[in-house]
Formats: sequence, C-alpha cells, structure tokens
Amino acid sequence: MIIGELINSSRKAMRPLIEAWDSAAVAAVAKLQAAAGADYIDINCGSFTNDEPKRLAWLTETVRQSVELPLCLDTPNVEALKVALPLVGERQAMINSITAEKERFAAILPLVTAYNTKVIALCMSDEGIPVGVEGRIKVADQLINDLTGAGVAIDDIYIDPLVQPLATTNEGALPLLNSVSAIKNKYPQVHFVCGLSNISFGLPKRKLINRTFLVQAAFAGIDSFILDPTDKQLMGALFAGEALLGHDAFCGRYLAQYRKGLFDE
Amino acid sequence: MIIGELINSSRKAMRPLIEAWDSAAVAAVAKLQAAAGADYIDINCGSFTNDEPKRLAWLTETVRQSVELPLCLDTPNVEALKVALPLVGERQAMINSITAEKERFAAILPLVTAYNTKVIALCMSDEGIPVGVEGRIKVADQLINDLTGAGVAIDDIYIDPLVQPLATTNEGALPLLNSVSAIKNKYPQVHFVCGLSNISFGLPKRKLINRTFLVQAAFAGIDSFILDPTDKQLMGALFAGEALLGHDAFCGRYLAQYRKGLFDE
Repeated sequence: MIIGELINSSRKAMRPLIEAWDSAAVAAVAKLQAAAGADYIDINCGSFTNDEPKRLAWLTETVRQSVELPLCLDTPNVEALKVALPLVGERQAMINSITAEKERFAAILPLVTAYNTKVIALCMSDEGIPVGVEGRIKVADQLINDLTGAGVAIDDIYIDPLVQPLATTNEGALPLLNSVSAIKNKYPQVHFVCGLSNISFGLPKRKLINRTFLVQAAFAGIDSFILDPTDKQLMGALFAGEALLGHDAFCGRYLAQYRKGLFDE
Repeated sequence: MIIGELINSSRKAMRPLIEAWDSAAVAAVAKLQAAAGADYIDINCGSFTNDEPKRLAWLTETVRQSVELPLCLDTPNVEALKVALPLVGERQAMINSITAEKERFAAILPLVTAYNTKVIALCMSDEGIPVGVEGRIKVADQLINDLTGAGVAIDDIYIDPLVQPLATTNEGALPLLNSVSAIKNKYPQVHFVCGLSNISFGLPKRKLINRTFLVQAAFAGIDSFILDPTDKQLMGALFAGEALLGHDAFCGRYLAQYRKGLFDE
C-alpha cells in the first residue's frame, strides 16, 4: 500500500500553497499522486501550529473532493483530528499516528474506535524509541495488545518501526528489518508501514539509499510505505521488488505498470 | 565479492577482440573492471568451440599480466582448464563451475584439488535444476558434502542457486532466496554466488529488475556476484545494500566509494 506523502506543510513546495489556502493547487497534488499509484493520501499541516485544526479540516475537504482515495490524517493533534475526522467521507480513513506513550495512546485511541479508522502505531513508548530487536518487539506487543483489546481490528493496525539514520548506527538497518520479520511472524495479520527519508539523513545520494532500503524493507515484510509516488525510480524499485517477491504472478502487474509509464529504471 | 563478467566471448563487444587475439584491448577491459571495484576477473571464451583451450590460455596470460586480481576460469571444458590453470600465477584462482552431475563433478574435482582453487558449484544434478526450496537444499547438501569430503575447504565453495527468469514463474525469486537463507543457516561458512541477467530475461527495464534482485539476494545471504562492475547504478545498489545490512559501520566505505565516484544514484 502506497501512502502519498506530498501534501505536507513541512515540504518547501507545499507550505506556500497551504498557507494561501490554494485549493486548486492542493487538489492538483492529490490528483498527481492518485494517478501515480497512491492508495492513500497523507495530509499534514502540523507546521501551522496556530490554526492546525482549521487547516486540516480544509485539507480534508479539498482532498476528499478531488480524488477517490481515502485520507491519512497525519497529526497527533487531537483537536485537529476531531474536526477533520467527520469530513473524511465514506472511505475508511487512517490516523497517523498513535504511539505506546500513555498520554498519546489514551488521547488518540477513542478517535480510532469512534471513527473506525486504520491507525499507524509508532514503535515508541514513554521510555523512548527502542533499539535492537527485542526492544521493538516489546513495544509492538504492547501496541497490538492494547489496540486489539480496545476493539481495533488487527488488520487495521500499521506498525511503524521508526527508521533511524543509517549514518549514525554501526549495525545498519538490520535490527529494524529483523524486528519486522519477528513481529510479522508473531502477528501475521498486522501490517507494517514506514517512511524512507530518515534512513539516508546526512549521506550523499540519498535517493539511492532510500530506494535500496525500500527493497529490503519490503523483503522483510513492510507492506506499506509513506513515499512520493511521483518518484518513478522509487516506484520502479517497489514494483520490481513486488514481482520478485512473488506477489505478481508472471509479472502481469509489472508489465501493466510499465505500459502506463508508472516507473523508470 | 565482485566477479567482473565483461571478458566473455558471448558478449557482442568482446567477441571480436578475443577473435583478433587483441591483448591490449582485453587488458584494458580487465583494468577497467579492477578500477571499478572487481575482486576477481571472470574469463570465458566458450563460444570458440574449436580452440577454447588455446584461447583460454592466452586470456589467462593476458589478464594475469594486466591486473593484480585473481582469475575466475569460466568453462566446464577440462582441456581448457588444464592448460589455463598452470598459468594463473600466485593468486588463488576460481573455477566456474562444477555441478552435482556425476560426470562433470568427477571431471572438474581433480582440478579444484590439484590447483587448490575456489569453485563455483551450480545447484544442478543429473536430475536437472531443482525447483523449490527443498530441491535446492538437497543438491547443495550433496555438493558441499562431496566437495568437503574430497578436501575442498568449505570457505572455497561458492554455491550458485541458478537464477531462473522471473517472467516464467509465479512465485518470483522467493524459492531461490529462501533456499539461500536455509542453506546458509545450515552451512554458515559456505559462500553463495549468482549472475543477475537471467532473472530479467524477457521483461522490460531489465537493469531495474537485475538491480532490485541484487539487493534482495544480498539480503538473503548471497555474498558474491558475477556482474558488470562498470555499471555504476548496479554498484550503487550493491554498496547501499551493504551499508544498510550493517556490513559498513557508520557508512565509512560507502562514503569512500562515493568520493571515488564508483557508483551512481
């Protein structure tokens, strides 16, 4: 599953459009992502700290009217979620994100259940972001148990193992990748999601690192990505990876995506 | 480990150079691969069926004199190996390849032990190329047991799981990747090697498929590749993958390779 990340006020090109309440431009970016193969459209205006609820409501209306895709509401701001959730329409929305931090969990959970949303659960707790495989499994256990215990369907949970910059580790992405495999083994129905840009922070040729990590992450069991679906090289890595992993018998989908020009070498 | 594949008479650009006994041109291709990061230089003149031994001997001399790298003698032709092996010099050569086919195994094994070479062992037997994970494990078991039983060091064995075209399967490369993990688990000291071009046979954007498969194969445990080291995008995928898999603490090697211009995004 591809969550289009472009409508985010922390992106240089987007901020002025959101600042100017430019509905036509925002709708165009939503349509671009839909045409490129996005399954969800993420919307984030968190950098507007003064009026985030009002702006998120406007983004929700604007994007819902412009594409046939469900929305991923990207904020921990409960007030913003409360005004945006009633506006998402018929398609099941996603909340990005809950964590195992007691306060945040208690604040977000009622919205997940009241609006029957999917939810991205960041692998972090009041003790911080776990390191190593065991630490991640422990936090994921807690998240999955607490969410399903509150009535959230396991199929609606997307664990985000929180990618850390490669340049600051000496074990690479391996502990993260291995923890995904281990959690997936324990909970085959749970989903995994991650962003890509953190992994390459501080390194040259960032797109290469992001793309290579995507291929490994998909192999390890991450089935959803928050990314720029208009990046045709990145999409190429995703589609080729899917075909190689046997999710695309006889490459039928790969060939269709190729004919539509959805990816590049 | 990178085995440079360019000196092969089945490549359109190489055949006329080998045909013309053009030592300077062959030496230049060897040097190009060495500069690009090759660890071994593969030499193959199998398409010269009339005088392969003579030509392989010449290639061996030519390449040995042009670079400081060991040679990978790429032929099942015993006569050709017999004349080339005495010419490889001090560096440990590699024979590409032996199989579990009774006749070929019996013919090649004495050369491996007499010249103390590394050896690529193709995962095939008199029953053909196995499909599925169990079939591959069975043939690998036989190869590893028979080779080590004859005195070959396990660290000198490179299992080639024989990549099949993706377009003709409905399980993708997964059985191959899973069999590598399983064999590696059983024999942690054995090496794995593969070529890349077969995987993309018949599909568009072949380099994308090859590169994506490389990343997955390295993740599954394949530690050696027969490839074109002057393909900078392919090398980028390899180097980024290694850093992500934790084989390059704090990305020191990646940064050095970047500064040398050895790869591209």
